[in-house]
Amino acid sequence: MGVLKEKGPIEYSKGLEGVIAALSSISAIDGKNGKLIYRGIPIEMLAKYSTYEETAYLLLYGELPTKEALEKFSAQMRELRVIPKKVEECIVELPPNPHPMDILKVALAHSALYDPDRQKCCREGVMRKVIRIIAQLPTMIAYYHRARTGQEVIPPDPELSHAANFLYMLHGKKPDEEEARIFDIALILHAEHGLNASTFAAMVTASTLSDINSALLSAIGALKGPLHGGANERVLKMLDEIGSPDKAEEYVLNALKEKRRIMGFGHRVYKTYDPRAKILKEYAEYLSDKYNDRKYIEIGERIENIMIRELGKKGIFPNVDFYSGIVYQFLGIPRDLFTPVFAMARSVGWAAHVCEYTANNRIFRPRAYYIGPDYVEYVQLEKRR
Amino acid sequence: MGVLKEKGPIEYSKGLEGVIAALSSISAIDGKNGKLIYRGIPIEMLAKYSTYEETAYLLLYGELPTKEALEKFSAQMRELRVIPKKVEECIVELPPNPHPMDILKVALAHSALYDPDRQKCCREGVMRKVIRIIAQLPTMIAYYHRARTGQEVIPPDPELSHAANFLYMLHGKKPDEEEARIFDIALILHAEHGLNASTFAAMVTASTLSDINSALLSAIGALKGPLHGGANERVLKMLDEIGSPDKAEEYVLNALKEKRRIMGFGHRVYKTYDPRAKILKEYAEYLSDKYNDRKYIEIGERIENIMIRELGKKGIFPNVDFYSGIVYQFLGIPRDLFTPVFAMARSVGWAAHVCEYTANNRIFRPRAYYIGPDYVEYVQLEKRR
Repeated sequence: MGVLKEKGPIEYSKGLEGVIAALSSISAIDGKNGKLIYRGIPIEMLAKYSTYEETAYLLLYGELPTKEALEKFSAQMRELRVIPKKVEECIVELPPNPHPMDILKVALAHSALYDPDRQKCCREGVMRKVIRIIAQLPTMIAYYHRARTGQEVIPPDPELSHAANFLYMLHGKKPDEEEARIFDIALILHAEHGLNASTFAAMVTASTLSDINSALLSAIGALKGPLHGGANERVLKMLDEIGSPDKAEEYVLNALKEKRRIMGFGHRVYKTYDPRAKILKEYAEYLSDKYNDRKYIEIGERIENIMIRELGKKGIFPNVDFYSGIVYQFLGIPRDLFTPVFAMARSVGWAAHVCEYTANNRIFRPRAYYIGPDYVEYVQLEKRR
Repeated sequence: MGVLKEKGPIEYSKGLEGVIAALSSISAIDGKNGKLIYRGIPIEMLAKYSTYEETAYLLLYGELPTKEALEKFSAQMRELRVIPKKVEECIVELPPNPHPMDILKVALAHSALYDPDRQKCCREGVMRKVIRIIAQLPTMIAYYHRARTGQEVIPPDPELSHAANFLYMLHGKKPDEEEARIFDIALILHAEHGLNASTFAAMVTASTLSDINSALLSAIGALKGPLHGGANERVLKMLDEIGSPDKAEEYVLNALKEKRRIMGFGHRVYKTYDPRAKILKEYAEYLSDKYNDRKYIEIGERIENIMIRELGKKGIFPNVDFYSGIVYQFLGIPRDLFTPVFAMARSVGWAAHVCEYTANNRIFRPRAYYIGPDYVEYVQLEKRR
């Protein structure tokens, strides 16, 4: 059995860092210069002019829609927002205390059973499955939140945009135009970001030619992990802990000395200011002024200044999670829903990568480098000690 | 924005074939010589002397259990077989017609909400979560099957082994000793096989430090895909299509001429007879004689002879899926449950790899090689055509 022993020098990049797992034309990140493009278009332009619906179309189909195509796509998104009655019944009866990502897993897994396009594998059928999931995740999240807080669920309003409708279903009142637009921008900024762990999990699952529901379920499971989702929630917790701007310096310097991590800083790819954080910071500022509540933003900015002063040389800057929590808080989104909201935004990027990879598919089957024993004798139970 | 364009020659192995994604001491495959070892022990020894419970212990803990440890582990497996009442209610009310793997996704996702060890992250708590899932998957599958066929569910019997209990819960009568043992061996042979797509999907999800439930949900979603699970089901369909041994040669030669694939042959790793297929073939033979029904085995052996004659030189031989379907059919397992049965057996391998990888974790985050445009102008909606 000596052949089982591995031979030769090992070439191994842990976590597959730097390893190319796919060719892609969906997005590109220039981590050195802080640039992010979706299908070639700079994120700043999309945040300024686009909508989540338009950006979703761009990511899924590869180009900006014509006016007619956008209308058709938006109408489809609105129509598909309604979740099956059975899924609604399941959601409202779930226990109120688990991790909301576990709820999203149940709701999404459940919805596959009632998907009228379940058996379809034509391009149009698959696209409708994709759009249905993107359209329904916000409804699932909002319904669960209403039910767990003892409130009636609010059915989706087909007059509202994707972003406005979510806030409406969550709060039971229509958001003002500004709030809806800021949330829309936050969704655009979270829609896609290359092969992070959740996207890659979706691709690995889909590479067996499994369905889009299973693929996105894998992504949601991956996003649930604390190394991936949840950082913006922890940023707010930290801001609460610090309590006031004048305590920020001591807190940060202590944390650095004790080698504790400051949440919302640093990124495997960006070695400069995350372009998404730049945009979100503006809106965090704007909302702080609008609601005349500058506590969080002031602590946040103080932390940012100290961190850049101390670690900027090492390429540590605010990432997308640092200011998004402040924005969401002003929009009235409960903290434990920040990660589900990330999931609903990113569902587009997940689906785009799944569609792109499976169109030219090869099943993911890397190998393990065997470091175990070559041969172990099977000792009968009675003789073991 | 020119920096976004990739530079230099591309080194890219599609599907990550040959790329090392982890170090592992769980199992090793010698594809040239047809050897498979679990923790150093040849699969033939385990099929001969071990049980699924003992093999599960071996894979999870790295060594064969002492008598005492095995008793404790088996008792735990038996105790944890009972699924939460809420999950049972959910399963029996599910629609009877979807893909059983979709049912398994719902049931498993659901069970996370009621897991008493949900919040635990100590080693013992995690292990109990792992064992609970391994113990409960058979109950979920059997309950669903009983409900969809209009029969009362059969609660697990703590007197029975893992394998015997599944057949009991499925059929409502205790299997004879031989049948239980043959199913036990089939489970041992399917318990682990390195970084195939489902195992890798579980590892990617777990690498964000998400929970074991999410990781195994990813694996089940991946196994659902036709490039991964379901081959044994399709082997039986082919045997039915052929109908009698004397028609096998014509069928196979035609298929080869038309470049159609013969299910149950060939493997990315094995270039000779799959050691698992060798063992399963013996039992398929045995059961065919026992029940005096040799139709399937005779067509199967005819196909095997022709295939080895035609393609043996190219390393195409029967794989694990070729004879497992015949065995399962004699054990009265409905064909559409073959893949769920694969999942319940492999859950051990999935969990072992998740535990091994996360014990020395790094989040999986490969990169995509960008092949899209460097810069695309954002054209305002009115100006698009």
